Amino acid sequence: MALPKQSEDFPAWYQAVVKGAELAEPSLVRGTMVIRPYGFAIWERIQQAVDRRIKETGHENLYFPLLIPSKLLEKEAEHVEGFAPEVAVVTQAGGEKLEEPIVIRPTSETIIWATYAKWIQSYRDLPLLYNQWANVVRWELRPRLFLRTTEFLWQEGHTAHETAEEAMAEARTILERVYRETVEDDMALPVRLGRKSASQRFPGAVETLAMEALMRDGRALQAGTSHYLGQNFAKAYDVKFLGRDGKEDYAWASSWGVSTRLVGGLIMAHGDDAGLRLPPALAPIQVVIVPIYRTDEEKAAVTESLTPAVAALKAAGVRVRTDDREEHRPGYKFNEWELKGVPIRLEIGPKDLAKGEIVLYRRDLRQKSPVPLEGLAEYIPGVLAGIQDELFAQALAFREGRTFRPSSYEELKALVKDPGGFIEALWCGRPSCEERVKADTKATIRALPLDPAPVQGLCIVCGEPATELAVWAQAY
Amino acid sequence: MALPKQSEDFPAWYQAVVKGAELAEPSLVRGTMVIRPYGFAIWERIQQAVDRRIKETGHENLYFPLLIPSKLLEKEAEHVEGFAPEVAVVTQAGGEKLEEPIVIRPTSETIIWATYAKWIQSYRDLPLLYNQWANVVRWELRPRLFLRTTEFLWQEGHTAHETAEEAMAEARTILERVYRETVEDDMALPVRLGRKSASQRFPGAVETLAMEALMRDGRALQAGTSHYLGQNFAKAYDVKFLGRDGKEDYAWASSWGVSTRLVGGLIMAHGDDAGLRLPPALAPIQVVIVPIYRTDEEKAAVTESLTPAVAALKAAGVRVRTDDREEHRPGYKFNEWELKGVPIRLEIGPKDLAKGEIVLYRRDLRQKSPVPLEGLAEYIPGVLAGIQDELFAQALAFREGRTFRPSSYEELKALVKDPGGFIEALWCGRPSCEERVKADTKATIRALPLDPAPVQGLCIVCGEPATELAVWAQAY
Repeated sequence: MALPKQSEDFPAWYQAVVKGAELAEPSLVRGTMVIRPYGFAIWERIQQAVDRRIKETGHENLYFPLLIPSKLLEKEAEHVEGFAPEVAVVTQAGGEKLEEPIVIRPTSETIIWATYAKWIQSYRDLPLLYNQWANVVRWELRPRLFLRTTEFLWQEGHTAHETAEEAMAEARTILERVYRETVEDDMALPVRLGRKSASQRFPGAVETLAMEALMRDGRALQAGTSHYLGQNFAKAYDVKFLGRDGKEDYAWASSWGVSTRLVGGLIMAHGDDAGLRLPPALAPIQVVIVPIYRTDEEKAAVTESLTPAVAALKAAGVRVRTDDREEHRPGYKFNEWELKGVPIRLEIGPKDLAKGEIVLYRRDLRQKSPVPLEGLAEYIPGVLAGIQDELFAQALAFREGRTFRPSSYEELKALVKDPGGFIEALWCGRPSCEERVKADTKATIRALPLDPAPVQGLCIVCGEPATELAVWAQAY
Repeated sequence: MALPKQSEDFPAWYQAVVKGAELAEPSLVRGTMVIRPYGFAIWERIQQAVDRRIKETGHENLYFPLLIPSKLLEKEAEHVEGFAPEVAVVTQAGGEKLEEPIVIRPTSETIIWATYAKWIQSYRDLPLLYNQWANVVRWELRPRLFLRTTEFLWQEGHTAHETAEEAMAEARTILERVYRETVEDDMALPVRLGRKSASQRFPGAVETLAMEALMRDGRALQAGTSHYLGQNFAKAYDVKFLGRDGKEDYAWASSWGVSTRLVGGLIMAHGDDAGLRLPPALAPIQVVIVPIYRTDEEKAAVTESLTPAVAALKAAGVRVRTDDREEHRPGYKFNEWELKGVPIRLEIGPKDLAKGEIVLYRRDLRQKSPVPLEGLAEYIPGVLAGIQDELFAQALAFREGRTFRPSSYEELKALVKDPGGFIEALWCGRPSCEERVKADTKATIRALPLDPAPVQGLCIVCGEPATELAVWAQAY
C-alpha cells in the first residue's frame, strides 16, 4: 500500500491514510460517511476523554430530539441566516405530507432554548449545565472525510446562567479545561486558544472562543469552539427568570462543541509518510506483536514464549494484539500496522527468543531496539508514556517552527504561501483589513487574544494604529 | 406530588412518574421526547452495561449514516413493506429540492448490507461482528414516553457469517448472554426468552428471538430482539463471498437491538405507588443523605459529622449525594427522592448524631432502621447489593404469581383480562388461532420455545393437535 508523500500531495496523502488505515469511507448520501471500527474506536476514546472532563466540571448529559419544527429555527435572526442554507428538511412522514416542515438539527440551540423556557423560572433553577452527544446534519457541498461531512457526531453543551460573567466564565472553563486538556493530554496536540473575530463567530453568538491546531501542511484546524451567547437565545425563546433581587431578567447562555472532526486533526497533525501515528492514550491497539517463524517448531516455540508476556501486558492495562494471521508475511504486517499508527510493534523470532529478547519498534521515531522479554510488562507502559510525550513535543516543535512574525504585509503574504503556519501580526480591528488578507492569501484570523491587552504598533495590512495581535492562517 | 395509584390507573401512574421523577418529557415534533438528565443518566448506565458485554463477546462499534437513499430501502421486499409506512422523508436540503428522496433510518440493515457488499469478498473477511449506537426515526401515531417514540436511541448489531449455524448461534449469544445478563443482572428484571411467531417477526427476518419482561399491570414488554436474517439481506444487496470450498455463496446475517424502551420497562417493572425504585446497579444516585437540623449549631454539627462519611462512601465507589438545599424541608426531600427511586436514603439529625447513628431507609422495602455512623462505608455496599437482589426477587415472584396455565380457552380469555400476565398454553401453530386470540383478548404470542420440542396435547384455541407451548400476553 504505497501512500502519496505528505510533502508532495497532502490532500491525496490524507485520503489514502483514511482509506488505507480503514478509518472511514464515503457513504451513499452526499457528504455522509461510514466510520469504520478502527476509526470509531479512536473517536470512542476521544469521546470518553471529553465526557469525563465534562462531568468532572459539573455538567450532566441529556438528550434532545433530532427533529425540530422548521418555524422554531426562525426565531433567532442571525442563527437562521447562518444555518437555514445548510439544513435538511423533512416534508413527508408516516406516509403523508407534513403540514409543517421539520428540519434535522444542524445544532440544537433552538430546540434547547425553547425547552429551557419551561425549566427556568427562578435563579434557583440556574445554572443549567447540560451536554448532549448527538449527530447533526449540515448539507455539505465540498465534503471531506472527518473534516467536513454532511452528518457528523459531536457533543454540544448548552448552559444557562444568572449573569453574563458566569456564562462567559463557563465558556472559558470549557475551552481551557475540558477541551484543551483533552486535545493536549490525550491527543498530544498543542492548541492555541483565542477569540474569533466578528466574521468568524457562530451565528447568534456574542463571542466565539476556539482552539486552533496546526496541521503538517501548515494549515490550521479549528478543533473546538465555545460560545458566549449573551441573552440572544433567551430573548428569542423568551427564557426569563426571577432574580435574587426580585426582578425578572433573561438568562445568559453558553454553547460549545467538539466533533468527529478531531479525528481528522489527529491524522493530519501526527501522521507521516508511512501513515498514521496514534498517541498511545487514544490508540485502539497500543502494542502489536508480530511473531516470526518458518517451521512449525519455530512457530510453537515463539507462540509459547508469548503467552505469558501477552497476559502480563494485558494485566498491566496495555491494549495488546498478536497478529498471528497465517495468510500474510511479517513484512506485510509491519506495513499495515505502521499505516494504522500502532505506537509499538514487537517482533519476535527464534533468534530473539534464543537471546531472551524481543525487538521493539517505536512508530513515533521509526526506531528498532532489542529489549529483554523478561519484565516486558513493566517496561512497556513507560515506553508508551514516552511516545505520548514525544508526539506532543514533535507537534509543538513543528508549530513553533511554523509560527512567524512578519514585519511587512508582503512578508505576511509570502509566509502564508510558503511554508504556511501561524502568522502573528498586529491588526487594526477593521473587517476591511481582515477581508483583504483573505482575498489576497485565503488566510483568516484564527485567534485573537482571550484577554485583550493594549498593543503598540500599526496594522500590518493598512498601517493604521493596531488594536490587537492576530494569528492568521489558511484553515480547514 | 401525589401520584395516581398504580392499581387504579397504571397509564396515568406511568406518565406521572416519568414527569415527576424528571425522566423525560414530550418535545415539539409529534412523538419525540427530551430525555432529561436523570433519565439519561439511567440510560447511560444501561448503555454501558450493554456495550461492555457487546465488546466482551468480540464485537466492535462503528457508525453508519443517519440518511439512506430512499431507493435503497426498496430492495428487500418484506423490509420495505414493514418500514416504508413509518419513515420520515427528506426532500429538500442545502436550499434545494433533492432529485432523489432520502429517508431517515428506521433501522440500518439496508445501508449496512449495501456497504458490506464492499467489505466482504472471501471467507477470510468473515465474520463481521459490528454494532452501532444510534438514533432511529419511526413515525409514531400513538407515542408514549420511552415505550413508543418517533425517535429513539438504541444499539443495532449487524453481523455477517459464513454459515447459517454461525449466524443463528450469534443471534442466540446476543440474546442469552448480552441481553439477558444486562437486563437480569443490571436492571434486576427477569426475562423470558423465546422465538416469535411468523406474525411478530422483524420484516426481513427468518427467525426473531426476543426477551419479554412482565410489567406490574400484567402486560408484557418486549425488551430486546435478536434476529436471524438468513441470506435475505445478502441476496437483496448482493453480498457474496468465496467460501473455503472455493464456491461463492451469500453471507448469513443476524441483527439485534435494545433501545431507550428499556427505561420504560425499568419504571413499569419496579415502580410502586410512591414512584420509581431503581436497582442500585443503574441508579444515578445510590445513596442520598438528608441532614436534619433546626439551628445553625445543629446544622454545623450534622454537616461536620457527614464530611468523613461522604468521603468514605465515595472512596468505596458509592454514588452518594447530600441534599443540603435550604429551600426545602426534610419531608419534601424524602418524597422527592422516593419518587426518584434512590435505593438508600440516610437521615441524620442531632439525636442520631448523639447516638453515633444514622437512619437508613431502604426504598425497596420502605423500611427504616438505625445503623452506626462508624463503618458506614463498609456497610452500605452490602445493603446496595441486597437491594439489587431484592428487586429481582420481587419481580420474579410477581412474574411467577402471574404466570398461568389455563385448561380451557374460556379460562385463557378470563386470565388475560384479569389479572393479566404470562399465559402458557398449547398452540397448533396456525395463524388463524393466533389471530382469534388477538381478536378476542388483544393478547399476542410473546414467546415460543427457543428450542422447540415435541408436545403432547391439543391447541387451547381450536382443539386440534398442538405443536408448541406458547406464552400469550397483552403487550406494550
